[in-house]
Amino acid sequence: MKSAPDWITHPDTPYLLIDEAKLKSNIGYLKQRVESLGSHVRPHLKTLRTLEAAEYLLDSKNAPATVSTLAEAEAYAKAGYTDLLYAVGVAPEKLKRVAALRLQGINLHILIDNMVQAQAVSDFADQFGQDFSVFIEIDSDDHRGGIKPGDPQLLTIAKKVGAHFTGLMTHAGGSYACNTEQGLKNFAKQECDAVRVAQDNLQAAGISCAITSVGSTPTAHFGEDFSDISEVRAGVYTTFDLVMKNIGVCGFSDIAMSVVTTVIGHNKEKNWLLTDSGWMALSRDRGTAGQSQDFGYGQVCRADGSLLEGLCVNSTSQEHGVIELTEAYQPEDFPVGHQLRILPNHACATAAMHPVYHVLMSDGSHNTWQRIIGW
Amino acid sequence: MKSAPDWITHPDTPYLLIDEAKLKSNIGYLKQRVESLGSHVRPHLKTLRTLEAAEYLLDSKNAPATVSTLAEAEAYAKAGYTDLLYAVGVAPEKLKRVAALRLQGINLHILIDNMVQAQAVSDFADQFGQDFSVFIEIDSDDHRGGIKPGDPQLLTIAKKVGAHFTGLMTHAGGSYACNTEQGLKNFAKQECDAVRVAQDNLQAAGISCAITSVGSTPTAHFGEDFSDISEVRAGVYTTFDLVMKNIGVCGFSDIAMSVVTTVIGHNKEKNWLLTDSGWMALSRDRGTAGQSQDFGYGQVCRADGSLLEGLCVNSTSQEHGVIELTEAYQPEDFPVGHQLRILPNHACATAAMHPVYHVLMSDGSHNTWQRIIGW
Repeated sequence: MKSAPDWITHPDTPYLLIDEAKLKSNIGYLKQRVESLGSHVRPHLKTLRTLEAAEYLLDSKNAPATVSTLAEAEAYAKAGYTDLLYAVGVAPEKLKRVAALRLQGINLHILIDNMVQAQAVSDFADQFGQDFSVFIEIDSDDHRGGIKPGDPQLLTIAKKVGAHFTGLMTHAGGSYACNTEQGLKNFAKQECDAVRVAQDNLQAAGISCAITSVGSTPTAHFGEDFSDISEVRAGVYTTFDLVMKNIGVCGFSDIAMSVVTTVIGHNKEKNWLLTDSGWMALSRDRGTAGQSQDFGYGQVCRADGSLLEGLCVNSTSQEHGVIELTEAYQPEDFPVGHQLRILPNHACATAAMHPVYHVLMSDGSHNTWQRIIGW
Repeated sequence: MKSAPDWITHPDTPYLLIDEAKLKSNIGYLKQRVESLGSHVRPHLKTLRTLEAAEYLLDSKNAPATVSTLAEAEAYAKAGYTDLLYAVGVAPEKLKRVAALRLQGINLHILIDNMVQAQAVSDFADQFGQDFSVFIEIDSDDHRGGIKPGDPQLLTIAKKVGAHFTGLMTHAGGSYACNTEQGLKNFAKQECDAVRVAQDNLQAAGISCAITSVGSTPTAHFGEDFSDISEVRAGVYTTFDLVMKNIGVCGFSDIAMSVVTTVIGHNKEKNWLLTDSGWMALSRDRGTAGQSQDFGYGQVCRADGSLLEGLCVNSTSQEHGVIELTEAYQPEDFPVGHQLRILPNHACATAAMHPVYHVLMSDGSHNTWQRIIGW
């Protein structure tokens, strides 16, 4: 491992650090993988929510992207991006913001899975002469929303939105609970099969479906055949995290995000380090709690990013972290003022706590990226 | 319960709603309580981190306040507040920002509990002729940092900081794990006794301690005698939350914070509501998980704030919430587009997810407050 450049120690801790070289590698790997399997990536921008990261994820301003909020859609649209899928079921009240972006020439696609939404889209379209682009959510693994591929409601909804219907989308969130290669392959096939069946059912009713969209980070990395699928979505693969490491999608060394922290004290009776990174900096996400290895609030690394095996942030309060040292370490190894890096359980949640990210560029130089905030 | 004014349904969901009348009542109650017991409140501003809330919490610009980051200290100083305790052990690297505020005439107090910090303060003071105001953290309940009241290190540290020494501070974070009246009274006494003993030990060594500072929301509400204690700190009492409800410090109706959300779908097979409030809006905090009543990711209320008994947000993803209906409710009771309010497990964590708060003023009108962000 290369030693970290001097500037790493200068921003006041806690701060979020992105490793550009790893980010580029993660993005490049999935793009190549999915394209070699016959499809394209529609990256989910929700993990980092920055314009700068979008430049790595998207080859052009017209490349397809996914967002989780209208605030992101508005910010990316303002920066010139034109093909955005808002991948959360739309609340009818939000159609006016959707329409405002479409009137600016942004192909903002919305997601629905019920007749109230379909009726609202149809009514708004009729009332204002507004065109929409609607995806219908297909439930491929029974974990959240969407309609089953064989549910007759699918046809009713598609007919209701009529010419505004664009495609089918599914997300096997259940794949996050899986950690075997075969299991992940199965989840990927299940996503693809669900939209294939739904597409066939529409076709049989004379409704053509222009786009089929599947994906999650695990299924995008384990799917074996995307040749008849238009696009594959994934988000957290941009930086990866400990949850993805436990699932088996990445290794420690692929994780491109960490929180830099400073030791501010010790509890020598208990062999604890106290740091200035609490849940405000790390997030409250305990996503590894139910997995094969529980990393507490994050895996501890040296300032250069190398792992300190067996050390986690064991507990947090708002601005304090507690690291319980194992027998392999002494408090004296980590004096007050010493800096450490913490790998996150869940990159999306940790990034959400930071309005600014510090970026270690491949050449060792320093950038800062601003997060797009709010809804 | 008064019905909510119309504007409540207008901001796009999810959004954070503060009830001004409850906020004022919570703040007024603790102020009167602590003053009647012979002390004063030094409110912790970390829960809401807004200039507007500080006006409710502090009687004047010179009133004592507590902050959890230097970013808060800088923002409150800029707004004219002059007496700020930064209640997280200071990293030596941060002394330059502390000094910059003190040079502007802000009495920013810092916290230390070890000789590395004391030496850093002393060295900085000597090198730049800078005065500091230092609190030493006393460990009253063995839960995090601080030094024991009888530890000879206390005298060594106090001597090292010399004329910069101001006071003793303790925080019985362990009180959050307690939920009996007598237990909370004991924790409050334990905090006070710890600083009393430490103050006596300093006095015996000829070191005078100008300020003794104790407190947490539970102990501030259950302490029986603060007559010889300079000040009592508390933060989350400003809005309260479900964790505090479980501890027994407040009732549901005292909780002044909620997240307003919209139903975006149903899973009728499972009797689920899907909403647009995931962990981005509610936070990942599961503080009630280990308590007497587990509220999942929050207690569900009607749009007017009245409780929907037995309904919680049972699971979340980034921008989705799942509410599993009990037998008392039908999905049809909550059509797509219907709005609900969610009471938070932990107000500090939920507020941290929102750059803007919407405020229901006592007269029914609408304000917005901006959160101070970053470190």
